[in-house]
Amino acid sequence: MLSLLDLLARLDAGRTSIEAVYDGVASTLDEREPDIRAFAHLDLGGARTAATGAGGPLRGLPIGVKDVFDTADMPSGYGSPIYDGWQPRADASVVTMARRAGAAVLGKTRTTEFAYLNPTVTRNPAAPGHTPGGSSSGSAAAVAAGMVTAAFGTQTAGSVIRPASFCGIAAIKPSYRLLPTVGVKPFSWLLDTVGVFAASVADCAMFLSAISGRELRVDVTDFGAPRIGVVRSGFSAEPSAAMAGAVDRLVRRAAAKGAEIRTVDLSGTVAAADRIHPLIMEYEGALALAHERDHHGAALSAVLAEALARGAATETAAYDAARSVAHTARRRVGELFENVDVLLMPAAPGAPPEGLGSTGVATFNRLWTLIGTPAVAVPGLVDEAGLPLGVQVVAPFGQDRVALAAANWLERLARG
Amino acid sequence: MLSLLDLLARLDAGRTSIEAVYDGVASTLDEREPDIRAFAHLDLGGARTAATGAGGPLRGLPIGVKDVFDTADMPSGYGSPIYDGWQPRADASVVTMARRAGAAVLGKTRTTEFAYLNPTVTRNPAAPGHTPGGSSSGSAAAVAAGMVTAAFGTQTAGSVIRPASFCGIAAIKPSYRLLPTVGVKPFSWLLDTVGVFAASVADCAMFLSAISGRELRVDVTDFGAPRIGVVRSGFSAEPSAAMAGAVDRLVRRAAAKGAEIRTVDLSGTVAAADRIHPLIMEYEGALALAHERDHHGAALSAVLAEALARGAATETAAYDAARSVAHTARRRVGELFENVDVLLMPAAPGAPPEGLGSTGVATFNRLWTLIGTPAVAVPGLVDEAGLPLGVQVVAPFGQDRVALAAANWLERLARG
Repeated sequence: MLSLLDLLARLDAGRTSIEAVYDGVASTLDEREPDIRAFAHLDLGGARTAATGAGGPLRGLPIGVKDVFDTADMPSGYGSPIYDGWQPRADASVVTMARRAGAAVLGKTRTTEFAYLNPTVTRNPAAPGHTPGGSSSGSAAAVAAGMVTAAFGTQTAGSVIRPASFCGIAAIKPSYRLLPTVGVKPFSWLLDTVGVFAASVADCAMFLSAISGRELRVDVTDFGAPRIGVVRSGFSAEPSAAMAGAVDRLVRRAAAKGAEIRTVDLSGTVAAADRIHPLIMEYEGALALAHERDHHGAALSAVLAEALARGAATETAAYDAARSVAHTARRRVGELFENVDVLLMPAAPGAPPEGLGSTGVATFNRLWTLIGTPAVAVPGLVDEAGLPLGVQVVAPFGQDRVALAAANWLERLARG
Repeated sequence: MLSLLDLLARLDAGRTSIEAVYDGVASTLDEREPDIRAFAHLDLGGARTAATGAGGPLRGLPIGVKDVFDTADMPSGYGSPIYDGWQPRADASVVTMARRAGAAVLGKTRTTEFAYLNPTVTRNPAAPGHTPGGSSSGSAAAVAAGMVTAAFGTQTAGSVIRPASFCGIAAIKPSYRLLPTVGVKPFSWLLDTVGVFAASVADCAMFLSAISGRELRVDVTDFGAPRIGVVRSGFSAEPSAAMAGAVDRLVRRAAAKGAEIRTVDLSGTVAAADRIHPLIMEYEGALALAHERDHHGAALSAVLAEALARGAATETAAYDAARSVAHTARRRVGELFENVDVLLMPAAPGAPPEGLGSTGVATFNRLWTLIGTPAVAVPGLVDEAGLPLGVQVVAPFGQDRVALAAANWLERLARG
């Protein structure tokens, strides 16, 4: 993989050049992209040109942009034949923010159809024959395959944290609206959240810092051992034995390194919010994609068409009640953090499922998308077969750096 | 003006036909549109065709759509030369919702540049020589001139309630996200709100009911006299003497008709939110229009370019602090409603200012946009010169029908 911080340090020290970085990327693309298929649209030449003499903290380094983000210089297909070859007029806000910070867009990464569940063709570089997860499949795969230093994704249920976990890389779904969704094809206005993938947690923090103008780096300060609340129950499903075992081992190592450990159970109020997430997502999806339903219904996959039909059939009163449950949970979620800095739990139920027929489930993710708290995927753990087992760190709203610092601390233990 | 409820009743009773309605609209357009210039794009033939045999509660009646909403069959220029002739691929969600309800889109109504302050060419049908207000200038004017039965607008500060007031018509800015903003060119994700204009409050309620599937009508039930809190201070400016006098007279009539009247003052917490509105709008605007700033800066008006430059220069910490002020105010605003159903105050500082050089100010509007509570513009009052003096009814979040019912009750007094 291409570590953003490592490459920046080597560029700084004159131990590599931006030309050499792109030569390496070109080789990696030649070797791996025909198999991985991370990109819906690729422009190596354009990225090289943009990178030449690029300033800013990101020095021209290549990034990937999920194909639900608008780009003014590349088509934006949203993973749907309805938008084949569609050319927006403006970049999504975060794309402009990244370009201002010196990033060069290598291409548009493959997304599931409108970032819902219908799988795309992308393969998992870290687990051949297993799903890369979704919906930000191409972004996670492009980072995992060493094609880009960072990539944008979106999460409406688990579409950033899950693919990061399955591909063995880091990611952050920041606090709600820390990154603007302007220029992202909407699915759910209450849930859609822009996130970021990179090789390590510290790389994610660097990228997020560079594009947002917020001080979020975790590579220059020692934040010490966090107080960790391990969430062992309350979700709608259990983790696999391998995942539960991996979390236990990580927690033991954390305790041995001085972390205070508690067990935290989701309160009934918060767990109730987890359960109503799909209703909100489907209700809003049916309105966000109302035009596509009415005019291009035959071009929608069955799994999406059925979800939108459920959304369209949902009573407004049920939606309003669900929003109220979400609102209450947002107010009460602080109680979970009373004696801990962060929560720790699986990022996915287990290792990536075999085959490409499903991108997996969002069991451990969707609640935090609904609540709006930052969540960070921590790579480094694997099962007996060597398949990635990602865990996840969650902090209170607005405490993105706390989440990143704890995740960075845990990542070193996971890899150690 | 074309009253939606009146036309529906006449269609029901066979006293008019949809063909006759469009003949009338055609005459009105011939007579008035060359002077009023409400439309950026007009398609009378297309609307007639769509209306023929249209079902749904709206029976093919013509509506206007502000030109910051995407439409799949009409160009969407967002009030900026940057988007001249721009043709989106999908309708904004509310446009599809209106079409499903049987509305026919007569055209795209003129907006100020990206719905900010730079005036457009539209004239005020109710006050020749005076601004129609903005940013939803064309939507308000098209309703006021009797060209459409309803129109969509957006409000980020005062862009729905102010033009309604200046043009002597009704409007509602519903609770935050009651109507989706999907397919609306964004300016501020925290503030952008879709609203609706019509000839009367009851017409607005009918239209909103028809498109949203919520029961919001106020023409079929007698809601009785509301308990009214009159807001007399706490805003950043005072109303004109004519406006203050008009409010006083309306309040006296309301009391005489059995309304309980109290005086309510904005608390310090709530007034603080009013003051930080511009900071949030400018900060988010600079990110929402980041691509346009970087690539088409010379095509922006001075007033917009300056606002975006202020936004870009705003420290992230100041923005975060402002969001926190807004958050606190949202939690505390309920205190204002402790003994009243609704709040009543001016919709604008006074009658529409003379000339077309400014669209007026959002002094009495921006707070409620930030708080997310429903606000309804009540027409019917005029000053000594016959110029419109709109007042405004505000209800707690989610109580849109309470706001509409009280506004409807007050409208009858205002007109009486």
